[in-house]
Amino acid sequence: MNSNISMGSRRRRLARNIALLLLVSNTYVAARGQSQVIDVKVHSPSLEHNLSRDSPDQEVAIYLPAAYRSEPERRFSTIYFLHGFADTRVQDVIKMLQSSMDRLIANKAIEPMIVVAPNGLNRYQGSFYTNSAVTGNWEDYIVQDVVGYMDAHYRTLPEANARGIVGHSMGGYGSLMLAFRHPDVFGYVYAMSPCCEELTADLGPSNPAWGRIASIKSVDELPGLLDREFLLVVFIAMDAAFAPSPANLPLLGDPPFRIAGGQRVPDPSVLAKFQSKLLIPAVPLLLPTIRKLKGIYIDYGAEDEFSHIPLGVQRLSAELSNLGVPHILEVYEGDHGDRARERVETRVLLWFSTQLRH
Amino acid sequence: MNSNISMGSRRRRLARNIALLLLVSNTYVAARGQSQVIDVKVHSPSLEHNLSRDSPDQEVAIYLPAAYRSEPERRFSTIYFLHGFADTRVQDVIKMLQSSMDRLIANKAIEPMIVVAPNGLNRYQGSFYTNSAVTGNWEDYIVQDVVGYMDAHYRTLPEANARGIVGHSMGGYGSLMLAFRHPDVFGYVYAMSPCCEELTADLGPSNPAWGRIASIKSVDELPGLLDREFLLVVFIAMDAAFAPSPANLPLLGDPPFRIAGGQRVPDPSVLAKFQSKLLIPAVPLLLPTIRKLKGIYIDYGAEDEFSHIPLGVQRLSAELSNLGVPHILEVYEGDHGDRARERVETRVLLWFSTQLRH
Amino acid sequence: MNSNISMGSRRRRLARNIALLLLVSNTYVAARGQSQVIDVKVHSPSLEHNLSRDSPDQEVAIYLPAAYRSEPERRFSTIYFLHGFADTRVQDVIKMLQSSMDRLIANKAIEPMIVVAPNGLNRYQGSFYTNSAVTGNWEDYIVQDVVGYMDAHYRTLPEANARGIVGHSMGGYGSLMLAFRHPDVFGYVYAMSPCCEELTADLGPSNPAWGRIASIKSVDELPGLLDREFLLVVFIAMDAAFAPSPANLPLLGDPPFRIAGGQRVPDPSVLAKFQSKLLIPAVPLLLPTIRKLKGIYIDYGAEDEFSHIPLGVQRLSAELSNLGVPHILEVYEGDHGDRARERVETRVLLWFSTQLRH
Amino acid sequence: MNSNISMGSRRRRLARNIALLLLVSNTYVAARGQSQVIDVKVHSPSLEHNLSRDSPDQEVAIYLPAAYRSEPERRFSTIYFLHGFADTRVQDVIKMLQSSMDRLIANKAIEPMIVVAPNGLNRYQGSFYTNSAVTGNWEDYIVQDVVGYMDAHYRTLPEANARGIVGHSMGGYGSLMLAFRHPDVFGYVYAMSPCCEELTADLGPSNPAWGRIASIKSVDELPGLLDREFLLVVFIAMDAAFAPSPANLPLLGDPPFRIAGGQRVPDPSVLAKFQSKLLIPAVPLLLPTIRKLKGIYIDYGAEDEFSHIPLGVQRLSAELSNLGVPHILEVYEGDHGDRARERVETRVLLWFSTQLRH
Repeated sequence: MNSNISMGSRRRRLARNIALLLLVSNTYVAARGQSQVIDVKVHSPSLEHNLSRDSPDQEVAIYLPAAYRSEPERRFSTIYFLHGFADTRVQDVIKMLQSSMDRLIANKAIEPMIVVAPNGLNRYQGSFYTNSAVTGNWEDYIVQDVVGYMDAHYRTLPEANARGIVGHSMGGYGSLMLAFRHPDVFGYVYAMSPCCEELTADLGPSNPAWGRIASIKSVDELPGLLDREFLLVVFIAMDAAFAPSPANLPLLGDPPFRIAGGQRVPDPSVLAKFQSKLLIPAVPLLLPTIRKLKGIYIDYGAEDEFSHIPLGVQRLSAELSNLGVPHILEVYEGDHGDRARERVETRVLLWFSTQLRH
Repeated sequence: MNSNISMGSRRRRLARNIALLLLVSNTYVAARGQSQVIDVKVHSPSLEHNLSRDSPDQEVAIYLPAAYRSEPERRFSTIYFLHGFADTRVQDVIKMLQSSMDRLIANKAIEPMIVVAPNGLNRYQGSFYTNSAVTGNWEDYIVQDVVGYMDAHYRTLPEANARGIVGHSMGGYGSLMLAFRHPDVFGYVYAMSPCCEELTADLGPSNPAWGRIASIKSVDELPGLLDREFLLVVFIAMDAAFAPSPANLPLLGDPPFRIAGGQRVPDPSVLAKFQSKLLIPAVPLLLPTIRKLKGIYIDYGAEDEFSHIPLGVQRLSAELSNLGVPHILEVYEGDHGDRARERVETRVLLWFSTQLRH
Repeated sequence: MNSNISMGSRRRRLARNIALLLLVSNTYVAARGQSQVIDVKVHSPSLEHNLSRDSPDQEVAIYLPAAYRSEPERRFSTIYFLHGFADTRVQDVIKMLQSSMDRLIANKAIEPMIVVAPNGLNRYQGSFYTNSAVTGNWEDYIVQDVVGYMDAHYRTLPEANARGIVGHSMGGYGSLMLAFRHPDVFGYVYAMSPCCEELTADLGPSNPAWGRIASIKSVDELPGLLDREFLLVVFIAMDAAFAPSPANLPLLGDPPFRIAGGQRVPDPSVLAKFQSKLLIPAVPLLLPTIRKLKGIYIDYGAEDEFSHIPLGVQRLSAELSNLGVPHILEVYEGDHGDRARERVETRVLLWFSTQLRH
Repeated sequence: MNSNISMGSRRRRLARNIALLLLVSNTYVAARGQSQVIDVKVHSPSLEHNLSRDSPDQEVAIYLPAAYRSEPERRFSTIYFLHGFADTRVQDVIKMLQSSMDRLIANKAIEPMIVVAPNGLNRYQGSFYTNSAVTGNWEDYIVQDVVGYMDAHYRTLPEANARGIVGHSMGGYGSLMLAFRHPDVFGYVYAMSPCCEELTADLGPSNPAWGRIASIKSVDELPGLLDREFLLVVFIAMDAAFAPSPANLPLLGDPPFRIAGGQRVPDPSVLAKFQSKLLIPAVPLLLPTIRKLKGIYIDYGAEDEFSHIPLGVQRLSAELSNLGVPHILEVYEGDHGDRARERVETRVLLWFSTQLRH
């Protein structure tokens, strides 16, 4: 039983879909004036001294709408976009967003807004945007360093009502978790196909990839495994992010399931650490802050290749509902990535535009 | 069910929402011309010879936008609105809709559309818009007679792409069930706080009202029970609608739970009839027709007084998701009825306007 | 919509069922030798200075099997039985258990075991066996004081392998929670129709009884409300147990849902306190201790009058399963209490007898 | 599915469990006399003319307890055991059962019973014990032909009260479905790690194996794929069993998900056929017959490699519970097959022995 998802095919399809959308989008009118894309490195005290030897200077790509230049007194609402696991570079993310933003603004479909795409990749192929004694404090990096940098250097509207956070997959997880914990920073969150609701289905103990972690001898092997063993790499990155264990060489993280007596069994203390990081168990604990959010939108494709996502988002929605947390859940026909860009255009940017204070 | 629409604080939020949702125009203009409301009785062959002695001539209230008069060649998309159990008269429903429609059309927030509010009340206080050997064929009445009447007598766009169906509570149930079964008639469905997903929570065997059915001696007692024993009346009406039993005097319906040995136990054959009418078990069976729907939107308030509704809608969404049916689920802060009117204005009419063919 | 369960009828049925079972049980053989029942008051440091003015000396009823006298060197395993909310006195509980124990031991169906029935009632009609700054530390009372008293004064087998804990309804909740937190004290737990998995269905915000708390002016009114407003009394007792608030006169507890703008909304900080006490959110947090339990058995009647119980136990079982916790779940035909005694005889005592070390 | 029964550490636990579970006798005596195993081929009119060219004469292995010979007038209760997908030969199944039966009977842990192990393998590696226009009528074969053969040729107790049906994985599915539909034949059912509750998790559209069906050119390739692509073979066998399509060469079955526009989408009409065969959607439809069953026991290992099984059994249990169907669900620490034999000894045979009429 092979539960590993081939991401090779996902990438191929994603590329094709983006191409298709670009083709269509040429028929739209051109932007008046000029939007800009800026690449910077933001130094992060939060990431110093991490054990995965990732730089504390991380790339951030910034989109400024044409109005940023033409209306020099105006302040703008800001969307923070968190990319997925082992995903493309932030420059590519922001370029995709630039063409969508330009077109929608030109068509007066949305307000001009700043978009910020910080990097969340590390040597494990993904930081999960969380604080970890091994990989560094990526949550603090986003919430304090990147947001602080933006508010200090750009004409943002520096308030939660005017900040949205969105992400896809690992970034969907990150955007929900950061919003759940920091509604004073991000007033609105849109999660696209968010991962990591709970350890069930392809993330559960039934996945034999949990048993193959011990065969990996170095973090350097991980990039080479992405095509064949995507979830194995995810598991190793989750261990370092959610259950960091500097003494547990060579990978510095503890897996929640271990082999005992020829069988895979949960390790309660590690599992408890994972629980504090996964979305569903976080909801009751974070309820006081979650209740302060102004808007929550979550979506996924019914044919998502990652089988925990449809199940997990459904359970997350039920948990939010049980606890009286307003939100929108949308299920669309599609898989994990094939309609990501289309949804950015037809849902994410429009929703933020109608919700954020401008 | 009973939607006491709180008018307090509505207007403030409404104004803001309209402002947010208007993506194109930001000019509030006054209505030109005059919309009309028309009351008719539509004779229904489907309702003839019903055993509850309800008339086969049932009231239908119709809203025609001002453009219907000013553009005499134009055809219009149509929204069918199904009211709830023991709910207000169709004239009141259509008057509420008229003021919302007029305002939104005047503000160019929505396209001009026809709205039709057929009656679904019978002597049981609710028909559940279903075909019954006791109460008459209310499904056929809506789908054939009312839709047929509208297309024959008015300048509708007579196609599924231009017809939406919406309802609240019992009407939410009805709108989903009729759309699930007749996507060739209704292309889009919006269910507001729909009831009757499955017999759980307050509809389940644990509700002692199931045990009080035997104390009711006539359908004439039902109106007097609405205040104190609302769900008892609902149960009696469901029995006649879902498990009609002309020989079972005096109420002509079979309850799915009966008393045996001092205990409430399910009656399998009656329960099987209910299952064929409840929303969740209907989904797999109706999948081939459900898949033809163009859009499904379902909402409810997290504090709904009817405890089966949050649970049932969540399970319905999971079932739709499992079977790959796209839909939107929105959970809002509110109870069963306190925000119904606000949601008609800020969600239902806007959604249909963006979805239907005009 | 009236979700309150009439407990009057439950009591009547329970009495009848016990009578029926006693009739049947006369056909069994009489016990050889003599079992004993002992009533003591156990002083509890844990209950001193509680604000509900309940005595720190609480009644404990103890069953000693005939073998306790006839085998004066032998040590025995012990079952702790926690009664339900507003339930009968511990002397009646232990008498029911005595007749069952005597008969089953005489028939060699079970091993001789000690049974201990501590009191869990307070002026709120139920302590929920939890530590509270208002009602006193009932968890400590059971786990330390009562167990300590038994091990100090009787020939128990003083180890977790030889201790079981069982309870019904509020006692089922208590037995699970105490076992989940103290597997070093109780090795095995049997929960009969346990309450309080999460605040859903009849415990959820949809229950209008949450809105009637403010009308109660004193704890002294509670006994008089049990027949008409059972869940209202439960809610008030839960508030004092789960969210104690000495300054919140007159009831000294905070409700998780409050009225705001004419509507019932969750209070996040109170809800967070409830979450830390409810069974389902407790599972992930307590996993390291839960994993140490030797056996977990949970049951309920499919027609339970408390609609949250079937739903809650199902979700609890799913949560245990997700986290790899072995357990048995049995659904039987019955309601909240009508088969309680029968199940003590046919399941609880037999299961403990086969599982505990003797 | 493939149950590699780990023999390690089994014996130790087994001895303890038997000791615990023997409530009456605590003497281990040797078997008197000799049990027998018989292999026959039962001709099946139900399997004639199947399109998979499997023989209508199928092997059945029969275990007769020693008492069958020593008490020549006595009639015996009968357990039918359905093996899993691509599983071992019925002779091996019955030999495993023989040693367990002999030992438990000798120890007076269970009553002497007949055990029957019919074959359920076909050229697709599994018949799913269902009627199919392609693979033949395997349901009729078991329920009519094999049961009829046993009652005609052996001293069975020919009544539902004295017949149990049990199976593992595909056989667990089969035992539940046949019992749900034929409670007049089988009064009791025990399902071990049953598959095929619904198409979710590893059986859902997210599994890329659905996309590889088209690459298989002949049923003859299937045995060679079992090691690498177990679920691909399962999917092909399910298609032929649940959605037989004689014209759809080369595999004669329709898959419920197909590729359209580069994406996997459900085929509603095929999915509808699957729904009528899967366990969860079957429950409401079969409720009148399910309610007649005397006992239902379902178990699974929390670490089952097939991720749909824990999720599916939990949902199946919830569905049974919602509809008031009594049953026991046990979650144990283990995977899909590692404790199958142990559980046959410590649960299945003991449970049938206490439940069946002898």
